[in-house]
Amino acid sequence: MQRSFVYKRKVNYYETDKMGVVHHSNYIRFMEEARIEFLEANGMSYAEFEARGLISPVVAVNCEYKLPAVFGDELDVLVEIKEYTGVKYIYEYLITKSQTGELVAKGRTEHCLTNKEGRPIIVKRQFPDLHEIFAKLVEE
Amino acid sequence: MQRSFVYKRKVNYYETDKMGVVHHSNYIRFMEEARIEFLEANGMSYAEFEARGLISPVVAVNCEYKLPAVFGDELDVLVEIKEYTGVKYIYEYLITKSQTGELVAKGRTEHCLTNKEGRPIIVKRQFPDLHEIFAKLVEE
Amino acid sequence: MQRSFVYKRKVNYYETDKMGVVHHSNYIRFMEEARIEFLEANGMSYAEFEARGLISPVVAVNCEYKLPAVFGDELDVLVEIKEYTGVKYIYEYLITKSQTGELVAKGRTEHCLTNKEGRPIIVKRQFPDLHEIFAKLVEE
Amino acid sequence: MQRSFVYKRKVNYYETDKMGVVHHSNYIRFMEEARIEFLEANGMSYAEFEARGLISPVVAVNCEYKLPAVFGDELDVLVEIKEYTGVKYIYEYLITKSQTGELVAKGRTEHCLTNKEGRPIIVKRQFPDLHEIFAKLVEE
Repeated sequence: MQRSFVYKRKVNYYETDKMGVVHHSNYIRFMEEARIEFLEANGMSYAEFEARGLISPVVAVNCEYKLPAVFGDELDVLVEIKEYTGVKYIYEYLITKSQTGELVAKGRTEHCLTNKEGRPIIVKRQFPDLHEIFAKLVEE
Repeated sequence: MQRSFVYKRKVNYYETDKMGVVHHSNYIRFMEEARIEFLEANGMSYAEFEARGLISPVVAVNCEYKLPAVFGDELDVLVEIKEYTGVKYIYEYLITKSQTGELVAKGRTEHCLTNKEGRPIIVKRQFPDLHEIFAKLVEE
Repeated sequence: MQRSFVYKRKVNYYETDKMGVVHHSNYIRFMEEARIEFLEANGMSYAEFEARGLISPVVAVNCEYKLPAVFGDELDVLVEIKEYTGVKYIYEYLITKSQTGELVAKGRTEHCLTNKEGRPIIVKRQFPDLHEIFAKLVEE
Repeated sequence: MQRSFVYKRKVNYYETDKMGVVHHSNYIRFMEEARIEFLEANGMSYAEFEARGLISPVVAVNCEYKLPAVFGDELDVLVEIKEYTGVKYIYEYLITKSQTGELVAKGRTEHCLTNKEGRPIIVKRQFPDLHEIFAKLVEE
């Protein structure tokens, strides 16, 4: 079980914009990559979620930009679950430059849990095994 | 019926890269936008295709870059069907700057026609109305 | 002067994801498109900003997702400046479906104003004409 | 020196479209990622190119799609330089699924070499060290 997970990824050329820095919309994508890897590292996968009829849409995103990343930078995306209520959960992210440790961005995403028809589910009752993992992953 | 269709679109900020020009991958997307509008202008829509169980995957793309477009440029994407065989068809595109007429890029996409299971279909037999439109749209 | 500006745009095919809806990261891009058009509608342009050495980086973004948009939807992005302090400003956005008026997403972006070297500037002193426009655009 | 280089990368969620497969435009980006890693593996980097005033714009791209990749697939992008004339060069790519070896796509990109002003350069004269590496990398 990895409550704090660091996802590493390099900045791609096509992710920069004419200011010479990573376009701000791309950090939202980096956070998605990070939480997918975080779930995998903790024995859960989107593929399994979908196979079991569990959908986890993004309800809200938030990102504060501190320092621009540039092409060639390697980033560390630290991801943690900060809250889990049984019907929704919240991730927080710290994106830093791998080489210097400088803070690039801070993010937060909120997700609900629904069935394929989009109706909210009670994870504890319908997916007790996942409920247990989520509950353990929440930071104390 | 519009055999030659011009789709207009402005370059977005997030479509530029650190060279200060439109990233080359985005022209592939501009071509998709253009052919969707071309189909609509000719009484066909992706929505209708999908509702009728017709899929039209891209089999090949091709793009030659002549002059970089920059943020704020308005582009004219001229699109035409160059070939239609009943099982596949080919679009060609000329992308120019609206204000100067300068050639930015030349493109070509090849598509097949399949059912939802991905098996090739005979458009003439299964979708005679679409076959007729495609046949008329092919440039003489 | 248009304090409330509505930017219209269709959802592109490549903006959808495997859930069949617009990927959540793309709304961040739609908001950028909207504020650029908003500035143009109010006599200011990114091109002019850059020519005069004024940079306006995104400091924070925020988006709440209410209802997924799908391929073919036309969206209305309502954009307004909610706050302007002379050194930074805040936009708010309401994204609705043009045809039904249903709320798709609510957004907010915060921007600072710097010179090319990234140092904060006093807009009032260095760009009094822009200061006046910004001040007038802020919602009462 | 690695004439044949394999770049590995997983398919991201946001790279899929409503058909449930990787959107065709993204393979153009995967090829860019691959050639950048290929150059690094052979002692050359974009950063160094740019520092030395060497620009290498894409002149043409080409991609044939054989089998759709889906979310979660790991891809092997095999990249090689197929031609080098001293003023331009051509890469070829084979994209396969890492686990099954199935061919997903075949690509080709053509690049010229210019200075910062966009004027073609004679690599052999101006960058003899790079000329030597390029010449060696060309497949016999």
